[in-house]
Amino acid sequence: MEQPKAVLLLSGGLDSTTLLALAKSEGRAVHALSFSYGQKHSAEVDAARKIAGRFGVVQHVVADIDPAIFSGSALTSDIAVPKDTRPHEATGIPVTYAPARNTIFLSFALAWAEVLGAEEIHIGVNAVDYSGYPDCRPEFIQAFEKMAQLATRTGVENGAAIRVRAPLIHLSKREIIELGLGLGVDYSMTISCYDPDEDGSACGRCDACSFRLRGFREAGVDDPVRYSASGQTVA
Amino acid sequence: MEQPKAVLLLSGGLDSTTLLALAKSEGRAVHALSFSYGQKHSAEVDAARKIAGRFGVVQHVVADIDPAIFSGSALTSDIAVPKDTRPHEATGIPVTYAPARNTIFLSFALAWAEVLGAEEIHIGVNAVDYSGYPDCRPEFIQAFEKMAQLATRTGVENGAAIRVRAPLIHLSKREIIELGLGLGVDYSMTISCYDPDEDGSACGRCDACSFRLRGFREAGVDDPVRYSASGQTVA
Repeated sequence: MEQPKAVLLLSGGLDSTTLLALAKSEGRAVHALSFSYGQKHSAEVDAARKIAGRFGVVQHVVADIDPAIFSGSALTSDIAVPKDTRPHEATGIPVTYAPARNTIFLSFALAWAEVLGAEEIHIGVNAVDYSGYPDCRPEFIQAFEKMAQLATRTGVENGAAIRVRAPLIHLSKREIIELGLGLGVDYSMTISCYDPDEDGSACGRCDACSFRLRGFREAGVDDPVRYSASGQTVA
Repeated sequence: MEQPKAVLLLSGGLDSTTLLALAKSEGRAVHALSFSYGQKHSAEVDAARKIAGRFGVVQHVVADIDPAIFSGSALTSDIAVPKDTRPHEATGIPVTYAPARNTIFLSFALAWAEVLGAEEIHIGVNAVDYSGYPDCRPEFIQAFEKMAQLATRTGVENGAAIRVRAPLIHLSKREIIELGLGLGVDYSMTISCYDPDEDGSACGRCDACSFRLRGFREAGVDDPVRYSASGQTVA
């Protein structure tokens, strides 16, 4: 019997790596999709490549997205017809919040899923231990899925909607870690930190590190990634 | 009073140029967004630049999108872990159909709208004289708008959804042309053809040319763009 095809968004972090392990354990033929959108994320992309290789995905694609799309200021680097000289209102948006990021990522996944004839998109969003981004909530995922059904030939001609699966959405970080450990995930391969040191050590102090460290603590397991000295003390 | 800000998707074609003229006539501060996704479209992008300048938009940005996203085959040009050697199912999709294209375009527009603090996204889709793409229908636009409200900080914190406006969606091509002529649009600047000649002449025979030529005929006006000799005869 043919394995169901799934396009899986793989960031190289703890959640998406657990997601991949779960999809493989459920017999999916995984086509992994990562994004490169600025230098800071090259370590994540490298991690994603190694993780994709380890789990034997069908293929792994890294799509470039102009980081300007997320910053707004750089978006104006193209021709600008000078008419409005007010400064951008973008300054209030924190660096870790990328406007409409999951919408863009899922849109690319949707295009690829339709090309591949994949029935599912898997995304590792989580609405429990998370930073409060609106596009990590179940109602967003449901709305995207509904939109996707109307957007695609697959949905319209075959009535066969491409499903968006977010199996980690209601799990705590502790539960995600326990799930992954049960599936044999080597979390030393994953990167969660928003602001790693030059040598790749996690800071231990950003939102992502805090949630991760607490999850490992609650699971009663040591986090195998390397933390910088200052971060370890604080965490 | 401050003009309402709108992000407007500008392809350089007849519909989106009419859309721009309409938005300007309605007092919008227009931030125009075009996409470059492959060599074939450079003439469209050039047209979009000229049209943006003519209409005095606040700014015009051309965002690059890897054409691989739409073709599937080229998507595999990155590292591919060989596991599944079946050929792509992409071959049945016609060249003019780009999977999830409007979803991706609107997602980028949504990110930019949130960064700018724009209240509206304008898109020139049309569900009357069109090629039958699923993502040109009113139900798709409505579903995207609903998803967008859930995806963004703007929608969640302020309850102020970013509206997706598609004012041409129920107009015939004739009505769009009449609307644009009434607003002073110079249609010689626009490009609709899917397959123009090397000298930029429209083929006169593709879907886009057929709809356009019929629209001008029904409006009782000559289409000012140049058609290739063979195309003119056929049309």
